[in-house]
Amino acid sequence: MDTNKVTEADCHTAHLTPQLIISKKRQNDEPHTAAEISWFIQQFMKGNVKDYQMTAWLMAICLNGMTNQETAALTEAMVQSGEVMDWSLCESLPAIPHKVDKHSTGGVGDKVSLILAPLVASFGLLVPMMAGRGLGHTGGTIDKLEAIPGYRTQYSAKDFAELLLTEIDDESGGKGPVGVAIVSPSQDICPADKRMYALRDVTGTVRSLALQTSSIMSKKIAERPDSLVLDVKFGKGSFNSNVEESIELAKNMIQTGELCGIRTTAFITRMDNVLGYTVGNWLEVRECIEIMRMGESASLTTLCWQRSEDLIEVTLALAGQMLVQGGKATTLKQGITMCKEHLLNGKAWKRFKEMVRIQGGDLTCVENYPDAKYSAKVYSTQSGWITSIDSMEIGLIGVLLGAGRQTVEESVDFCSGVEFHVRPGMQVHHGDHLATIHTERSAILENAVQRVRSAFTFSTEREKLPLLVTHFLTKESIEHFDNVLRQIE
Amino acid sequence: MDTNKVTEADCHTAHLTPQLIISKKRQNDEPHTAAEISWFIQQFMKGNVKDYQMTAWLMAICLNGMTNQETAALTEAMVQSGEVMDWSLCESLPAIPHKVDKHSTGGVGDKVSLILAPLVASFGLLVPMMAGRGLGHTGGTIDKLEAIPGYRTQYSAKDFAELLLTEIDDESGGKGPVGVAIVSPSQDICPADKRMYALRDVTGTVRSLALQTSSIMSKKIAERPDSLVLDVKFGKGSFNSNVEESIELAKNMIQTGELCGIRTTAFITRMDNVLGYTVGNWLEVRECIEIMRMGESASLTTLCWQRSEDLIEVTLALAGQMLVQGGKATTLKQGITMCKEHLLNGKAWKRFKEMVRIQGGDLTCVENYPDAKYSAKVYSTQSGWITSIDSMEIGLIGVLLGAGRQTVEESVDFCSGVEFHVRPGMQVHHGDHLATIHTERSAILENAVQRVRSAFTFSTEREKLPLLVTHFLTKESIEHFDNVLRQIE
Repeated sequence: MDTNKVTEADCHTAHLTPQLIISKKRQNDEPHTAAEISWFIQQFMKGNVKDYQMTAWLMAICLNGMTNQETAALTEAMVQSGEVMDWSLCESLPAIPHKVDKHSTGGVGDKVSLILAPLVASFGLLVPMMAGRGLGHTGGTIDKLEAIPGYRTQYSAKDFAELLLTEIDDESGGKGPVGVAIVSPSQDICPADKRMYALRDVTGTVRSLALQTSSIMSKKIAERPDSLVLDVKFGKGSFNSNVEESIELAKNMIQTGELCGIRTTAFITRMDNVLGYTVGNWLEVRECIEIMRMGESASLTTLCWQRSEDLIEVTLALAGQMLVQGGKATTLKQGITMCKEHLLNGKAWKRFKEMVRIQGGDLTCVENYPDAKYSAKVYSTQSGWITSIDSMEIGLIGVLLGAGRQTVEESVDFCSGVEFHVRPGMQVHHGDHLATIHTERSAILENAVQRVRSAFTFSTEREKLPLLVTHFLTKESIEHFDNVLRQIE
Repeated sequence: MDTNKVTEADCHTAHLTPQLIISKKRQNDEPHTAAEISWFIQQFMKGNVKDYQMTAWLMAICLNGMTNQETAALTEAMVQSGEVMDWSLCESLPAIPHKVDKHSTGGVGDKVSLILAPLVASFGLLVPMMAGRGLGHTGGTIDKLEAIPGYRTQYSAKDFAELLLTEIDDESGGKGPVGVAIVSPSQDICPADKRMYALRDVTGTVRSLALQTSSIMSKKIAERPDSLVLDVKFGKGSFNSNVEESIELAKNMIQTGELCGIRTTAFITRMDNVLGYTVGNWLEVRECIEIMRMGESASLTTLCWQRSEDLIEVTLALAGQMLVQGGKATTLKQGITMCKEHLLNGKAWKRFKEMVRIQGGDLTCVENYPDAKYSAKVYSTQSGWITSIDSMEIGLIGVLLGAGRQTVEESVDFCSGVEFHVRPGMQVHHGDHLATIHTERSAILENAVQRVRSAFTFSTEREKLPLLVTHFLTKESIEHFDNVLRQIE
């Protein structure tokens, strides 16, 4: 006889026990109330719910799932376990700006945030971006930015708000807040999520729609933005192998965001190939700087479109939608057009420089950044049209080269990585220079060359490349999505 | 992408991790191998599988189940975590006796073991019984025996074997081993089960066919018997509310026993009413002694059949089957007839006295055992035929009176409990004496009287009492079962 039933009344009495909560999720007769979830997370942080009780509950969630309401309640409970952004400083501004952030589920060569955040801020929106570090085959925005000498990423929630509101000369010649900062979440942000994730990592409970959603969304919701744009990836180099899984995750994240009171939309994007032409921390920063400066000369413009078109396409789609949500553009097409303009007229670049300066970074290094100790060229042993460059494999090679890490404790080399001189869709001949490898580790150089070469797939005929951004989702709808750039031609 | 697949080869390499095992049970694509389960339990005992990993695995088992092979492997792994009985001492005997034990899933007033163990041993079989203590509404054999002054229940596995083989004058005038001992499992028996049960108790993972089966069976299999007879109860005062659940559990336990190489059979018995006429440690010992001595006078015989018929019926069925499995009887009917004989001719009583003496107990107390400080009579406020006496309620009242415990740390009063003067099926009138309550706690006396009275249900007409022993199960078959006593009339 299992009489472990939890009633709403139990939450207000001494009757509620960890066992009752766990048993309820195990039985799965009815969903948890928000009060139950909040109580469980609070008691976990107080040490009254033990690790071994949390993991039993997490496993029950993996197997029995959670409703959207439960996921949102869990997300909010994790947010409440720590500090949240306090935007009261904004009240001193003439008009309170819209606060909008972006989140990507992670890929290889995904350096979108570095361009997108200052780009969107250059329109007067606030972009309070707390970003992550690399783990496994994916890189992390924070690691990349730390490749810039002096760039500081650790701030308290309070300092983060001040940072964003640092006054600079704005685009119209007046004064205004810089509006963008990219920092690492402080220890005080969502501490419950940190502890729960560490447990999930060692108990086979990482994969779970509800748990993944609440983990991701809690850290974004702690920023207390007005709206969010998500980049949910699928394909070889992402965490979801097929598009349906990504759509499912995106829907879940949107529902959770909206239930927490935040306008949330999502793009589904393909991550079969490396995004842009570089993988590796400084290499990626350099690629982003080139793109933000491409308007400075016609030849640079051409070069950037040639080798970073996919990166620019994803960046413009996400940034354009952020302008729509922030009320700066009426349609996505208009938003994308406006963003392209700020890439070409140097306004994104100017804002990026201000952000780096305010966060203590020194960009004088750009011209003479040290090279990695060892480098090697990868030549093609085949002829044909490149159909793909296996991004999962390139991500793993990146870790091998020192650009990434296998465990959270490792550090990363800033100069190591892979530069590609060709892209999917291009024709190459035997002996063509495909890529260059950079590393501090000579021992693995030869192996890396072979593995990078093997990551290429060729076709004897020219093939049409599949769409990069495939869907756009809102709370209300899901749309198939065509080439972003075609929308602004 | 979840690549957490465990292959047989992993078990023999360094690749096996707790996460892989947990993920495999979570995914539920294929069952665990015995090697995997054994590895997981071993690593748990070594501290390499953490409590929070064990509970995640246990929850996955609760929700995804285990095959019979997995349950048997888990049972054997728990057995291997500690000491097992070493029967090599038996080799000095002229013939190695059959070792047979009985297990009951627990009920109220269930004192069968106290009679059954010496009764079966009186036929020359070995009954190595490790028994439990009471918890919640059910009593425990060990608590009951400890009501006998001096009776010792703590023995090492080695001493337990010696105890059983203690030489006494046997029934045929020669010498032979006493063949019976009832002790508490030492700390060295199935330590993995102890730790796992403690975790299950606080993580909502107690109810699970596989986990219940392996927990029960591991402790019996550690006795290394040749065969087992199970008493799986259903009804109000048991842990299974309906007969189907009990049959399911019995089948599972039988499969597990047989896969571990032990001949195993089961009776399904009804536990709606208190078994026998007493609840409470010393009261129950006294009832058993009366039954074992009933042959001493015709009036005692009549009285015992009147007030303990159900208890005698269950005892004879189980003991009779143990004689069959031990090769002492050819049919169950013959076994039951033989057992009844040893109850009436005093041989069971003689063997009981020897067992108590060898374990240090002093039965001179029987005639002048101290009464509980307070007692109260319960009178009927209704007239009619008694249809039932709610055994769950009586069990809980027993705890209230001091006869049982809510948590394992509590101690029990030996003299407290309830004696019934009427039984289901009897006709009573307003004012008739239904029961007597004994306790050391005066404060709860009045409340207990009312609750005992309310535990009775009456009918205005005489109703046929339902069958007590409803099914008999072997590995091969399941049979409906008729009244045991009718078989030997």
